[in-house]
Amino acid sequence: MYELTTVDEVRRRRRADEGATWGLVPTMGFLHDGHLALVERARRENDRVAVSLFVNPTQFGQPEDLERYPRDPERDLALLREAGADVAFSPAPEEIYPSGFQTYVNVEEVSLPLEGASRPGHFRGVATVVAKLFLQCMPDFAMFGEKDYQQLAVIRRMVADLNIPVDIIGVATVREADGLAMSSRNAYLMPEERSKAPALFKAISGAADAISKGGDVAAAVAAAREKIRDAGFGKVDYVEARHAETLAPLGSHDEPGRILAAAQLGRARLIDNVAIPR
Amino acid sequence: MYELTTVDEVRRRRRADEGATWGLVPTMGFLHDGHLALVERARRENDRVAVSLFVNPTQFGQPEDLERYPRDPERDLALLREAGADVAFSPAPEEIYPSGFQTYVNVEEVSLPLEGASRPGHFRGVATVVAKLFLQCMPDFAMFGEKDYQQLAVIRRMVADLNIPVDIIGVATVREADGLAMSSRNAYLMPEERSKAPALFKAISGAADAISKGGDVAAAVAAAREKIRDAGFGKVDYVEARHAETLAPLGSHDEPGRILAAAQLGRARLIDNVAIPR
Repeated sequence: MYELTTVDEVRRRRRADEGATWGLVPTMGFLHDGHLALVERARRENDRVAVSLFVNPTQFGQPEDLERYPRDPERDLALLREAGADVAFSPAPEEIYPSGFQTYVNVEEVSLPLEGASRPGHFRGVATVVAKLFLQCMPDFAMFGEKDYQQLAVIRRMVADLNIPVDIIGVATVREADGLAMSSRNAYLMPEERSKAPALFKAISGAADAISKGGDVAAAVAAAREKIRDAGFGKVDYVEARHAETLAPLGSHDEPGRILAAAQLGRARLIDNVAIPR
Repeated sequence: MYELTTVDEVRRRRRADEGATWGLVPTMGFLHDGHLALVERARRENDRVAVSLFVNPTQFGQPEDLERYPRDPERDLALLREAGADVAFSPAPEEIYPSGFQTYVNVEEVSLPLEGASRPGHFRGVATVVAKLFLQCMPDFAMFGEKDYQQLAVIRRMVADLNIPVDIIGVATVREADGLAMSSRNAYLMPEERSKAPALFKAISGAADAISKGGDVAAAVAAAREKIRDAGFGKVDYVEARHAETLAPLGSHDEPGRILAAAQLGRARLIDNVAIPR
C-alpha cells in the first residue's frame, strides 16, 4: 500500500504472516460510510484487513446496470488508506472469470424470494464471487453490511453448507441523518427524489414497531407499502415480513423477524430492511 | 487409527501438524485395488493420507441405486490400514447435509454430456460433496481415479473456477487381468456377465488405436458401439470421442482425445474410458 495490489499478493502476504488474523471486506467499490464501518469493524477484530473492489458482472441482470454502476477507484483508495485497510485489490473481470469459467454456487431457498424474485440469477452471481474471494484470500473473518440483508443471509447459508472456513460478521446499516440507508446507488437520486427517499426506512420501521407491539403482520406490511407509494416512490417491488434467517414468510410473532422492502425512486431502486424488535 | 474417525478430528490433526502435507482420497467405500492405488499414490506424495468413505446421496438419481450401493466398512478399514492410510472417516448423511442444507455447486458445460445426460443432477451432487470434503479437510492434494473420467474433469474445472486451494491428481485406471476396469459396481455382475465385461475396454481401446492411426472418428466410434452390442451388452448409453479436458466433441486429430463409453450389462451399468494415443 498505498496502491491497489493483486489477489496473488494478498495470498502471499496472508501466508507470510501465519499467526495474524485477516478480515476481508468484499465491496463493489464507490465506497461510502457504510463500507468504511465494515473496514473499521474488520480493523477492530483482526490484525490485517483486506478490501476487494470488484463490480461483479455475474450478479447484474441487464448489461446496462453493470456499465452504469458508479466507480471511483482513486477516491476509494484514498478512503481506504484513511480507514486503515492494509491491502486493497481490484481484480479485472477476466481474472475472476477466465475463459472457460463455468462453475456457479447456488444457494436455493433463501435466494428465491424478494431480491431473488426481482433479480433472477443475482444471488448465484453473489454467492459464486464471494466463494471465490474467500477461497482466494482465505480470511478468518469477512464483513458484510445488513443493508443487503438477503445477501448476508445467502452468504451465511453458503458458508455453513459448503464448510467454508470463514466467520461471517453482519454489520448494522449506516444511515444518513434523515434515516436513508447509505448505498452507492443513492448517487442516482435527483435532489427532489433524495428528499423523498427516507420515507422507505420510516415506513418499514413503522411496520416493525406495529408488529412488535402485537399488530397484525399483513396489515402492518400493507400500511408500509401504502406509505411508500404515498411518499412518491414508483414501483414497489416488495414489502415483506420474513423470518430473520430463512427469509421464509414470518410464521408467528415469536420468530426472529425482519421487514424488507425494495422500491423504485426515479432512476434508483432502493432497498432497505429493519429488525422487528422483540 | 485404526478405527473410523470424524471430520472434526481430521481437521484438528490437520491443524496440529502444520508443516505436514496431506493427501485426501474421497471414496464411496467398498474399496478395491483402484482405490488402493489412489491411497498408495497419496502416501507417496504426502506426509499424511486421509480417506473418506461416504456414499453420497445427492449424486444418486433413484433412491434404489443409493440403497443397493454395496457397502463393507469393516473390510474397507482393514484394507486402508494395510495400505497405510493415516485416517479414515465416514460421515453420516445428516452430518454432510444437515437440516436446512440448500447450497449446491454446479459445473456447467463439462457436466452436461455423457454421464451428465444419462444421470441428471449426478455431477451437481459430486461437485457439491467434493467441495465440502475439500473445505472440511483442506488437503494439499486429492486423488481421483481416471476410471470416472468425467468426474475428474468436473472436479478439475470446479477447483480451478472456485479457486479451491487443492491440487487434483488423476490416477490411471486399475484393471483386472482381462482388462475390465475395477469398479465397486462389478459386484453386480453374474458370472456369465463378468466374462463378457472386458469387451467394453477392448472395444474402446480398438477405437482409440484406429483414431490415433488417422482413422475416421465417427467410424471408429460406431465400430466400438457395434462390438459392445455384439459382446452381449444391453443398452449402450454412449460411446464417444471427446476432447480430453473439455469433453466437447473431438474437433480434430490434433486435440488431446479420450474415448468414453457406458453400457448396461445385466444389473450393472459399466463405464470406461481410454486416452487416444498421440
